Amino acid sequence: MASLLHQIQHRSVTIDAPLSLDSGQTLPSVTIAYQSHGTLDANKSNAVLVCHALTGDQYVASDHPATGKPGWWARMVGPGKPVDTDRYFVICANVLGSCMGTSGPATPDPATGTPLGMKFPVITIADMVRAQAMLLDHLGIERLHAVIGGSMGGMQTLAWAAAHPERLGSAIVIASAARHSAQNIAFHEVGRQAIMADPDWQDGDYYDKYCTPTKGLAVARMAAHITYLSEAGLTEKFGRRLQARDIKSFGFDADFQVESYLRHQGLAFTDRFDANAYLYITRAMDYFDLAEPHEGQLAGAFARAKDVRFTLVSFDTDWLYPTSESRRIVQALQSVGAAASFVELSAPFGHDSFLLDVPALDRLVAGALRAEG
Amino acid sequence: MASLLHQIQHRSVTIDAPLSLDSGQTLPSVTIAYQSHGTLDANKSNAVLVCHALTGDQYVASDHPATGKPGWWARMVGPGKPVDTDRYFVICANVLGSCMGTSGPATPDPATGTPLGMKFPVITIADMVRAQAMLLDHLGIERLHAVIGGSMGGMQTLAWAAAHPERLGSAIVIASAARHSAQNIAFHEVGRQAIMADPDWQDGDYYDKYCTPTKGLAVARMAAHITYLSEAGLTEKFGRRLQARDIKSFGFDADFQVESYLRHQGLAFTDRFDANAYLYITRAMDYFDLAEPHEGQLAGAFARAKDVRFTLVSFDTDWLYPTSESRRIVQALQSVGAAASFVELSAPFGHDSFLLDVPALDRLVAGALRAEG
Repeated sequence: MASLLHQIQHRSVTIDAPLSLDSGQTLPSVTIAYQSHGTLDANKSNAVLVCHALTGDQYVASDHPATGKPGWWARMVGPGKPVDTDRYFVICANVLGSCMGTSGPATPDPATGTPLGMKFPVITIADMVRAQAMLLDHLGIERLHAVIGGSMGGMQTLAWAAAHPERLGSAIVIASAARHSAQNIAFHEVGRQAIMADPDWQDGDYYDKYCTPTKGLAVARMAAHITYLSEAGLTEKFGRRLQARDIKSFGFDADFQVESYLRHQGLAFTDRFDANAYLYITRAMDYFDLAEPHEGQLAGAFARAKDVRFTLVSFDTDWLYPTSESRRIVQALQSVGAAASFVELSAPFGHDSFLLDVPALDRLVAGALRAEG
Repeated sequence: MASLLHQIQHRSVTIDAPLSLDSGQTLPSVTIAYQSHGTLDANKSNAVLVCHALTGDQYVASDHPATGKPGWWARMVGPGKPVDTDRYFVICANVLGSCMGTSGPATPDPATGTPLGMKFPVITIADMVRAQAMLLDHLGIERLHAVIGGSMGGMQTLAWAAAHPERLGSAIVIASAARHSAQNIAFHEVGRQAIMADPDWQDGDYYDKYCTPTKGLAVARMAAHITYLSEAGLTEKFGRRLQARDIKSFGFDADFQVESYLRHQGLAFTDRFDANAYLYITRAMDYFDLAEPHEGQLAGAFARAKDVRFTLVSFDTDWLYPTSESRRIVQALQSVGAAASFVELSAPFGHDSFLLDVPALDRLVAGALRAEG
């Protein structure tokens, strides 16, 4: 399936300038696939950068070219919506290391013309931000009205505020954290091991092969998907209800609805995502710890960000990025005198709440974007 | 490794009587591997049955023949210990469907002499209890002083009280539940899919093959292992500390201690457990719902258990079998007038607390066993 995925044409720019990575390696040039909505105003002051999550992409408000489904945040971004494209010029770029047109493991090796696979350098959240900054430079956008993102998108938003505080007015960080916890790393490691245990992974060198590691990738997605939902949400949605039968089969088919749902989630994911990209992006998230370069003091990351308006949102049922992680960020921001508003919202959907129907989130985002600094 | 595992000799009895299973199938005979400690008194009144968890076995207080490690509950069971073998005759049997000598998927097909694999019938927690009751009949033990178990061992203990209330004085149920939740089922399904995605699984017909599904089984174990620990426990034990290096490798080796730990847990598990047994036992747990035969009314399961003394223990950091599940059992017991004491203990180890150093648990177990009905 990876070969089909990589045949999709995306809108992109290739910037022929070197990108120095945290690893010490350099990409000689970088291709960035992105979508935009709305119109950039004359003084280029209305740009909003939306940062996507681990398995998201640039199709935030337009149909996904592989699945045909609406954009992943179509409920949030569009004309008259909280991120109002009648008002803002909205940019969403596929992150570095991903598989929807931006440079990543499927990018051809300039020397051989074959995909780099695991020869692509390991990247970080800060590297993703560097690539986005290059895109903005290319578009002639000096300063962003706001950066906004949920989950890994929130990590990028925080990294933006840390690296380029002078380039953004507002940072909206939803269901996120300033570091990956041991449990977060552990779940990602299970997913990576599932992919690498699949013999079709072939050390990442599968792009021109008949078989790709869909089984391993599906298992990785299944494990991760459980962490995106709340226990109560799963119980309400599925409970112990059986799938299309009245009695237990006493076999290993998907007897329970929750099994059938998970299998579907795993399988469907392999149609729109690349296994190597999953390895690289989970690694970037695991490496994320904004406090690390500041002797473990998170406040150090925000020392120059006093003039950025921060809005933080967590969800009470999110056990992957719990409220305590948002509070830790708020405390660091307050200690450097940055303006930070924080709300824990009640929503039943766990971590995925940031993607789903939570009207209070819509109001918060709309309000945060309209606030003047 | 499975072939080595199945070469170990275990103490066992083969009972040449049919065992009728919940599935409607019948095992013509059943082999039960078990260990015992202490001495059965003259009137056979001091027997205590210890029920093991998913990946446990009969080696509760004696060294494990495959790993050489001490019994899994050696801290709880032994002379002068809470389950005092100077006082009680302690029996622990490998559950039906497992891989340490009791009938299961590695059992030879009587017709062909080759292991049954997936032709072994799907079994339930109630079936495990039926096999244990056959063992007790064989040993001439009419009535148990107590049944005790944690996690899946607690499920068996509850099933004992429901099926044979006249045969036990006391039921001690630790870190357990009367049903498997949607989230519990989901995590098990990930493990099963990881095993079945491994081409070395070969539809379960791998016992006489060179390759066994160790990679899939290791991934299953890794995913499950995270659920046995608390987020805070993982943070305290590992945090974001790096493994045997000072700086990040910017690669896909185990950079973080938690990754290295998980990989070790996964790999070590494959030396002592059989992938098919993992499929069968997780299935039995997923099927467990004591209320199901009683139109969803859990109290119905305990209607005949008024004279059993119940002790329930949960742990505040156990998110796999949270305290709410124990409370639900206590409410059902109280509604039928059964004596039930319940304590939520504070311990940092998550679900695994029942296996670890929690002195308050030791005192509770010792007290519950000594209480007279």
